Amino acid sequence: MLALVFDGKATLRDDWPEPSPKSGEALVAVRMAGICRTDLEVLKGYMHFRGVMGHEFVGTVLDGPRRWIDKRVVAEINCVCGKCDMCSSGLANHCRSRTVLGIDGRDGVFAERVAVPVRNLHEAPAGVDDVSAVFVEPLAAAFQVVRQVRLDRGSKVVVIGDGRLGQLVARVVKLFVARPLLVGRHEAKLEAAEKQGIETAPAEKFVAEARADVVIDASGTASGLDLAMRTVRPRGTIVLKSTFAAAGELNLAPIVINEINVVGSRCGPFADAIKALASGQVDISALVSRRFALRDGLAALEAAADPENIKILLDVK
Amino acid sequence: MLALVFDGKATLRDDWPEPSPKSGEALVAVRMAGICRTDLEVLKGYMHFRGVMGHEFVGTVLDGPRRWIDKRVVAEINCVCGKCDMCSSGLANHCRSRTVLGIDGRDGVFAERVAVPVRNLHEAPAGVDDVSAVFVEPLAAAFQVVRQVRLDRGSKVVVIGDGRLGQLVARVVKLFVARPLLVGRHEAKLEAAEKQGIETAPAEKFVAEARADVVIDASGTASGLDLAMRTVRPRGTIVLKSTFAAAGELNLAPIVINEINVVGSRCGPFADAIKALASGQVDISALVSRRFALRDGLAALEAAADPENIKILLDVK
Repeated sequence: MLALVFDGKATLRDDWPEPSPKSGEALVAVRMAGICRTDLEVLKGYMHFRGVMGHEFVGTVLDGPRRWIDKRVVAEINCVCGKCDMCSSGLANHCRSRTVLGIDGRDGVFAERVAVPVRNLHEAPAGVDDVSAVFVEPLAAAFQVVRQVRLDRGSKVVVIGDGRLGQLVARVVKLFVARPLLVGRHEAKLEAAEKQGIETAPAEKFVAEARADVVIDASGTASGLDLAMRTVRPRGTIVLKSTFAAAGELNLAPIVINEINVVGSRCGPFADAIKALASGQVDISALVSRRFALRDGLAALEAAADPENIKILLDVK
Repeated sequence: MLALVFDGKATLRDDWPEPSPKSGEALVAVRMAGICRTDLEVLKGYMHFRGVMGHEFVGTVLDGPRRWIDKRVVAEINCVCGKCDMCSSGLANHCRSRTVLGIDGRDGVFAERVAVPVRNLHEAPAGVDDVSAVFVEPLAAAFQVVRQVRLDRGSKVVVIGDGRLGQLVARVVKLFVARPLLVGRHEAKLEAAEKQGIETAPAEKFVAEARADVVIDASGTASGLDLAMRTVRPRGTIVLKSTFAAAGELNLAPIVINEINVVGSRCGPFADAIKALASGQVDISALVSRRFALRDGLAALEAAADPENIKILLDVK
């Protein structure tokens, strides 16, 4: 089958072997997929991943338990053992022996077909079209923030980073907080957020004052964390939403001096994301920059790396 | 008066001007003082401090409100405005316009006399001798950990760093947790902790397994934080107890991937520390490595920088 594979470099393959679902797994025909920052990190060596890239998708079940056949589905990306200390304490996303679709030890979704554990499947409701369904996984990650940090209407919240994830986080935060502020470097991206009623500030004009109750860093850069440390109030909370390795100086003293709480945040609740998309509470229509056929996947990866673009989709079906 | 001053370099001065207490301040004759890692950071330029060094001390009130005259006292180090948003929300230690004894904008205690806000004073009970009283401030900082993080008898807690602060933190944690583990690099320091019934492990033999519920990093190094990230379990808590600037690579991705909670922790409750010393719950007797006269303050600073020593005291009276 056709697949976009990372084998040290991104490669389009016509001859990739069909997935062979194991017990408890379904075979899913991919309809559409999305490119995420983590996919770009895989290109740089993240998790030493090798195989079919990609983890954001919507598809149709081809084979598996009868009740799932022909259903349009999305799927959680962590494939877990169900037995370890993390799984048995309700933290299955942190399973000690997990594999992760297209990220760690398991082929992903930039391919015609993919095998996924049945327990990971969620049906995409009729009101959630394919484009919206591709956003379920990253939107769930955005909802994880409000699971981890208590927000109310009066909370002062700043989101740093106007990319894919920052956009979704700002939309989710706005469901809980009267006036979140999105800080970013790209005029067009900030405009997309403003159309959703989100206040924005260009990074070059934003003055950090150590007044925010919560700062969510979705920039994926050391300078974003640095700005977050200067923006949050003493005893406030920084949510770290994207991974990065700091190179060079990074002064963490403000965390101690201001007794800041830093919360790492990864995958989130699919059900919340599906509900928000189905009800129209969260609107992602302005976030799709371009669509490519899977066959043009290499060009799609290049487009996803262009900071002027927000979301790049792959049409597979 | 005699004072140990930092003016770009540490300098012993015979002619330092007497403190002139302002309204609301007491004049205190210093009896004994302790050298802390922060004092060594001041020598490297921390907070761009200039003036009399030092913040850990016990003294006798010479002048101030009648009820305090001749009392033996210790004092909180943050001198606050009482009016800003932090002060009025119960977070006075984070006062927006605070000065800090011997650290930020205010002369410290490595001198014959010091001016201190009366509101900062705590009486040293008869059962707490001068040596113990000097430990009130750092012990209070250790108690801050258990104010910020919930611990119970079954919690798996690892303290990283066998220096002054790590020793105190391990002693406090042991009041709440059955078997805390102290990881360090110095045989003699680990022995001092073992005498208090604290389990220890030499850093070179310690294997990080991502199993600890709480890891307290009192090492003040980037490698300590790195070890903490590998030692704490997913969704566990790292308490950052000492400031440092990371130079070179520091990969913070584990915070996001394992959804770790990092809590900065600074000054703590004096009352808890005084009570623990008065009751004998916390024993600091093994922690004093050497005592110097204030006149030998420069040699004392050198001794404090020697990793083989734990606590260095200055006899002032």
